[in-house]
Amino acid sequence: MRKLIGPFSQIVTMNGLPLKGTLHDPSLEVIEKGGIWIENELIVKIGPFEELIKNRQSDDEIEELGGDYVALPGMIDAHTHICFAGSRARDYVLRVGGTPYLEIARQGGGIWDSVTKTRQADFNQLLSQTGTRALRLLNDGVTTAEVKSGYGLTVEDELKMLKVIREVHQNQKIDLIGTCLAAHICPKDFEGTQKEYLTHILHELLPKVKEEGLSNRIDIFVEESAFSVEEGDFFLRKAKEMGFSVLVHADQFHPGGSQLAVKHGAVSADHLEASTDKEIALLANSDTIAMALPGASIGLGVEFTPCRKLLDAGAALAIASDWNPGSAPMGDLLTQAAILGAYEKLSFAETIAGVTFRAAAALALSDRGTLETGKLADLIAFPTNDYREILYHQGKMRPAKIWKKGEFIS
Amino acid sequence: MRKLIGPFSQIVTMNGLPLKGTLHDPSLEVIEKGGIWIENELIVKIGPFEELIKNRQSDDEIEELGGDYVALPGMIDAHTHICFAGSRARDYVLRVGGTPYLEIARQGGGIWDSVTKTRQADFNQLLSQTGTRALRLLNDGVTTAEVKSGYGLTVEDELKMLKVIREVHQNQKIDLIGTCLAAHICPKDFEGTQKEYLTHILHELLPKVKEEGLSNRIDIFVEESAFSVEEGDFFLRKAKEMGFSVLVHADQFHPGGSQLAVKHGAVSADHLEASTDKEIALLANSDTIAMALPGASIGLGVEFTPCRKLLDAGAALAIASDWNPGSAPMGDLLTQAAILGAYEKLSFAETIAGVTFRAAAALALSDRGTLETGKLADLIAFPTNDYREILYHQGKMRPAKIWKKGEFIS
Repeated sequence: MRKLIGPFSQIVTMNGLPLKGTLHDPSLEVIEKGGIWIENELIVKIGPFEELIKNRQSDDEIEELGGDYVALPGMIDAHTHICFAGSRARDYVLRVGGTPYLEIARQGGGIWDSVTKTRQADFNQLLSQTGTRALRLLNDGVTTAEVKSGYGLTVEDELKMLKVIREVHQNQKIDLIGTCLAAHICPKDFEGTQKEYLTHILHELLPKVKEEGLSNRIDIFVEESAFSVEEGDFFLRKAKEMGFSVLVHADQFHPGGSQLAVKHGAVSADHLEASTDKEIALLANSDTIAMALPGASIGLGVEFTPCRKLLDAGAALAIASDWNPGSAPMGDLLTQAAILGAYEKLSFAETIAGVTFRAAAALALSDRGTLETGKLADLIAFPTNDYREILYHQGKMRPAKIWKKGEFIS
Repeated sequence: MRKLIGPFSQIVTMNGLPLKGTLHDPSLEVIEKGGIWIENELIVKIGPFEELIKNRQSDDEIEELGGDYVALPGMIDAHTHICFAGSRARDYVLRVGGTPYLEIARQGGGIWDSVTKTRQADFNQLLSQTGTRALRLLNDGVTTAEVKSGYGLTVEDELKMLKVIREVHQNQKIDLIGTCLAAHICPKDFEGTQKEYLTHILHELLPKVKEEGLSNRIDIFVEESAFSVEEGDFFLRKAKEMGFSVLVHADQFHPGGSQLAVKHGAVSADHLEASTDKEIALLANSDTIAMALPGASIGLGVEFTPCRKLLDAGAALAIASDWNPGSAPMGDLLTQAAILGAYEKLSFAETIAGVTFRAAAALALSDRGTLETGKLADLIAFPTNDYREILYHQGKMRPAKIWKKGEFIS
């Protein structure tokens, strides 16, 4: 059955824009009083509602909208850690009291705290908590999200996390893309060197991940408190040899990881708060997506990723929430992207590209991220007649309607 | 009739803390499993629920809570401009596109755009829009808000705004405190110098404000794009002579206004993003409340007010949203205060003091801002059993229950 949705005051399609570099709002395709024909989860035609409705046939459904709505592609949050147990409110209180993040980690807080609680949680507890967060994402207008493992750090617990992520994906309407981040930190209870831990993962975990089809994406945290550039180099090479797509937590506090990401053709280099002009130039001249995580800047109270410089240099910029219990507890992509845009002076087009088609590219998903014929009918509608209002309210104007694969969610 | 509310997992009373200087969380008074007796809009007793309930009499009402809740004093947003008509989304798009705020003002955007639209709106239109925003504040847990005029800039339109603010205060449950900000900018259509405009206000408007009891607070925007330090000096002296309490929009882009505020014993000096060590020392050694407006920093994408330095120097720090259509369109005090705290490394106690009793002091309201016997029963409850969770979620944990003068709101 076909369905026509509209009329929207405006449809901002995000179609026809380049993957890399600066974007100016006048280059946006905006369909005034638009409509969208949907069939079998896909957009089959998009254009002025009055024209589209002429093709109506007797058994077509018309989902007619009253009032003002601006449609955008459903948001894509391409970097999250929403599969976890436990709160890190204690860390947060220490941090706003002035204790540095890395110092908190050294004191036994930080990632290790979440590892302990996530290991303790059984499959169903973790499923319930992850499912609740996934539902919140969808209700916020995020129709696709990436979710990392990395709080298990044993073969068994990493598989548990990846299976939870898969099950939430299967049970809920939001699409979740799982990523194996067993190389988050070297667990305290691993008996051996950091390199031995990475070797252990490569030999014992990754073959199972592959065999069970749990993920084709391997991530590593390259940072002073996690893995060195040399260790990352070794790990990424091996993971690629096994046929995985790779990505890197890079340059969060110190530069280094992004060079590795470019060297190994990573799909994305994420964080980049500490990237200098050298790393920016490297990323801009690569096919690696630069992923800004404003939620981590806001959560830690540190500088934003130099997005303006990255775009001006020609990089492809995606924006994700990094929702996690430690450094980014807010979990609100729209608010964070809007605030990032205000600080980094991003155009509406650049900000929205970062949470739609450029984020889709970071996940190697070519079937979403714009509103055009043949793409998934993942769309969100804001209660306004002017797209400029959406970011202006800095997260306080929420999507009023959400469709996932053509199905109306709320 | 008396009413007992509880048990709360925790009541954070904010009682017994100094008005000025640093605050540490261990000095917070936290009543575990607490209750609050309310009579005639006031708190008559506060303490452990199990003890309080023993004093129950036959006609007392018991509002028994199921589940976990942490109670705080209702928030006080001591600096807003929510009485306005029109959107400034166009300005916002220009600004994130890189056009400076003051340049947008020179181009006819900025405050003047809101003045034009607010003048065009009739009393009832303005009443409706202001009322909607006031209701949103209350539902966000703000039980008292200050609201400024300043988009009228004629005698008639300034009075219209102040009457709208008074009528919303009278009709709705939230308390609104009106402030006359006719000295926001010199209106483009005033025929005369800036000083002549100020004289005009002093002679034609302020006597009417006084006569009709519309406000006892006079504010002025001291800034390169508004009024000079000399003009402010003249105006504040005259306003004080008329018996008004005064306050200043100070040091937003350039230092200067805060010196004036201190000189004239202003109740508050608001903004302070550009305050240097000199202004910080002046404020710390005065009775003027230093008012940070993180919403304006986030809205403009600029540095935060140096709150850590202000507190360390001994100043009294309040935190307000500055909700306005131009520089601070978000209008979410809790989120903004949490983000400010993360960047400025404020303790929970310092952040919450800034939106409760220290904000009350800026409004010269001694009847609210803490939860203790004799104060108004303005309180909010968050769905958690640990107060540390509240700011940790950076605005995503909202008050689940709100009471204004003892009446349950939602």
